[in-house]
Amino acid sequence: MLKAIQILGSSSGFVSHRLKPHGNCGLSFVSISTKPSSSSSSRTPTTKNSLLSPTLSVRKGPCLRAFRVSLTRCESNPDGTSSPSSVAFQSNGNTRKIKFCQLCGGPTKHEIPDGEEKMRAICTLCGKISYENPKMVVGCLIEHDNKILLCKRKIQPSYGLWTLPAGYMEIGESAAEGAIRETWEEASAEVEVLSPFAQLDIPLIGQTYIIFLAKLKRPHFAPGPESSECRLFSLDDIPFDSLAFSSMLVTLKLYTEDRKVGRPKFHYGTINKRPGTSPSEIRAYTLDYHMLS
Amino acid sequence: MLKAIQILGSSSGFVSHRLKPHGNCGLSFVSISTKPSSSSSSRTPTTKNSLLSPTLSVRKGPCLRAFRVSLTRCESNPDGTSSPSSVAFQSNGNTRKIKFCQLCGGPTKHEIPDGEEKMRAICTLCGKISYENPKMVVGCLIEHDNKILLCKRKIQPSYGLWTLPAGYMEIGESAAEGAIRETWEEASAEVEVLSPFAQLDIPLIGQTYIIFLAKLKRPHFAPGPESSECRLFSLDDIPFDSLAFSSMLVTLKLYTEDRKVGRPKFHYGTINKRPGTSPSEIRAYTLDYHMLS
Repeated sequence: MLKAIQILGSSSGFVSHRLKPHGNCGLSFVSISTKPSSSSSSRTPTTKNSLLSPTLSVRKGPCLRAFRVSLTRCESNPDGTSSPSSVAFQSNGNTRKIKFCQLCGGPTKHEIPDGEEKMRAICTLCGKISYENPKMVVGCLIEHDNKILLCKRKIQPSYGLWTLPAGYMEIGESAAEGAIRETWEEASAEVEVLSPFAQLDIPLIGQTYIIFLAKLKRPHFAPGPESSECRLFSLDDIPFDSLAFSSMLVTLKLYTEDRKVGRPKFHYGTINKRPGTSPSEIRAYTLDYHMLS
Repeated sequence: MLKAIQILGSSSGFVSHRLKPHGNCGLSFVSISTKPSSSSSSRTPTTKNSLLSPTLSVRKGPCLRAFRVSLTRCESNPDGTSSPSSVAFQSNGNTRKIKFCQLCGGPTKHEIPDGEEKMRAICTLCGKISYENPKMVVGCLIEHDNKILLCKRKIQPSYGLWTLPAGYMEIGESAAEGAIRETWEEASAEVEVLSPFAQLDIPLIGQTYIIFLAKLKRPHFAPGPESSECRLFSLDDIPFDSLAFSSMLVTLKLYTEDRKVGRPKFHYGTINKRPGTSPSEIRAYTLDYHMLS
């Protein structure tokens, strides 16, 4: 789906973080140790305690207590527009962009509703609250003859770079069904999903990647409308220098590491873009809260 | 968060499916074998090939090729309204409810955009397409002294019934951070997330549950505003007859089964409500596409 694919470009962005040291933790172990609070500004993730692949770009040294204050994003907007935008992210996402009610067309006000903690767009006529929530991007890591299938993008962003087939999950389908559909649309490949492989949250842009291991039902694939080429790569030949998105880089690093020692596991993690880095710098991230199952 | 909790009630609903036999598969093994198609009406999940807990209510007999045509839902609407609604689900979700553009206030038309396959609400003034996507509900399964922590709901739906602390994931947080926040809000408990435990999609209502195993950082918990009681239950005492939602029933069954044989695994599955059953019949489901990792 065209729109879904464009959104994958939004895994890059400029972010301004205010970071505060908070204790110490080792390099090889990270996890979540958060002191919840009724104030959204005091949500305080720190790192400790669950295994990280040593080859991954991880947060080193002292654990960091992150207070996201604001960010400037340059991304393909999930709502279909594509323009730079500056938003107060932690408090309201894109809520201020919501000027009118979808149900009655009334103008909105932006307030924190009774019993809640976040700013929302509230219709001044009918009272409807417009909620915004993260979106799921679903895709397949297809194994065939000890190789994996990648697609070269024929659309922006990341034109000409390689990616796993993936796109937005739709209402009315499961994540696995969505991953199968996206694989068909982008690589004309009929696949059977084998197992869940990774959930990678990208809080900065409100996306969660759900990646499944899959196999070809028959040895056929061909570029869909958004791909210029589909190709099988052996693990040693994966084009790590020509990947489209941080999410794909993390997924493929985790996969190749797992394969070196045996069967792939299930990975959960959070991809946080390094402050001040450009959208095209897909290696400028930390993988935090990495947990295996 | 109040609104988030109310949405959990929408795991129940009335659904009308047209089902078509498609091959055979055994009882104990199910997975996805879908022939993708460019037509949304021919998305064809069938079942085969991945382990299911024998104690779960599973789809038996011949695999089914499901064509969801339409459904009538009675649920707490994720947009904050609470009323019965009849929608053409597979084709457009609640798209027809979107009458106006959130950006410019212009009236919408409902069409399939060029290059897409699903009906969308498109602004007749600025051209913005309003996308709707599934939402993530995040929560914690908290282990303490070989017991687990449950909350008795003090709000509708499912007033007086037991649930794990869980609610909608927000923009700007990871799934794990959201699960920790919801646990704080509903059980006043500070937890550390240990590992991902389950992803359960509910395509009928466009929700995906992400449940983490967690532990108390200190032995304190107390009912939040939406709970009348929080209590630790040993595995033999889990109130399976007084649970609030199908998603919680599935999660706790998977967990107790895993605990009988050792360490919990990661589970992916799809909860499909049985056609013609009422919202309160939380056992009237099939767990399809169950996969372990």
